[in-house]
Amino acid sequence: MNENLVRARDNFIEGIGHLSTTVGLSRVTGQLYATLFFSNSPLCLDDIVERLKISKGSASVNIRTLERWGLVRKVWVKGSRKDFYEAEVNFEKIINGELAVQVRRKLGRTLDTLTETENLIKEIPEDLNQEDKKTVEFYQKRLRKMKEIYKLAEGFLESILS
Amino acid sequence: MNENLVRARDNFIEGIGHLSTTVGLSRVTGQLYATLFFSNSPLCLDDIVERLKISKGSASVNIRTLERWGLVRKVWVKGSRKDFYEAEVNFEKIINGELAVQVRRKLGRTLDTLTETENLIKEIPEDLNQEDKKTVEFYQKRLRKMKEIYKLAEGFLESILS
Repeated sequence: MNENLVRARDNFIEGIGHLSTTVGLSRVTGQLYATLFFSNSPLCLDDIVERLKISKGSASVNIRTLERWGLVRKVWVKGSRKDFYEAEVNFEKIINGELAVQVRRKLGRTLDTLTETENLIKEIPEDLNQEDKKTVEFYQKRLRKMKEIYKLAEGFLESILS
Repeated sequence: MNENLVRARDNFIEGIGHLSTTVGLSRVTGQLYATLFFSNSPLCLDDIVERLKISKGSASVNIRTLERWGLVRKVWVKGSRKDFYEAEVNFEKIINGELAVQVRRKLGRTLDTLTETENLIKEIPEDLNQEDKKTVEFYQKRLRKMKEIYKLAEGFLESILS
């Protein structure tokens, strides 16, 4: 391949790698997605290892992350026994698919944590000293605050996801 | 402090630490924010080191990250020469402050990358072989696709941030 094309490709891959750290994915995960996004045929793990100069273990872990988020899918390549992958490029499909499931799961877990913390506080015996009593009140106030924030975040996300 | 209160607090801190990995912050960054969010007085680095059992270096790096994102602010505590910190709890202030600046900056950099990649491709001499010509066309198609995704993401973010 023409070296200017390789440079263009590497530039793109580096940029997406940088961006991915903003959305909770590692740099390598972003680079791997960009590699597949910028490839006109499916790639196997060995191709990815060669292009990104990463270990096979890292390639494999990051491919699984991308699969779990619905950003990459396994494809069958005639005549090969290796697993091949291609990038999902339909953005609407991505945000309405596994990505939505994962984000909702993470949010659900956060709500569980808040409820758990509330319950732990409710179970505290009444015979507390003055300072601890004040702390209980403060914690309850903060939990209400975090629930407000949670609801705002949930509202935003649902408006994006639906 | 009552041990049930400590348990409730630690449960909260752990939950937020888990959540933070979804939004591009490390677990420790989230735990540190939660520690300040769940504290009724400002804390200094030594307090944080003790509560989270992390190194002073890690506490310092993570505090700076949180400050940069407008999630934490330095406060002056009478009679102490140490730096003290408290959590910003006003969610609207957070998303309209430094967070918005940082997100817009990251998005801007992504657009720069896309433009750079486009320019690199434009500079490629015309005398390419058939395969490379096809690759150029494919790369241009993909860049257009990424720009569409970029514009969608930008639209969503602006609707949240404004």
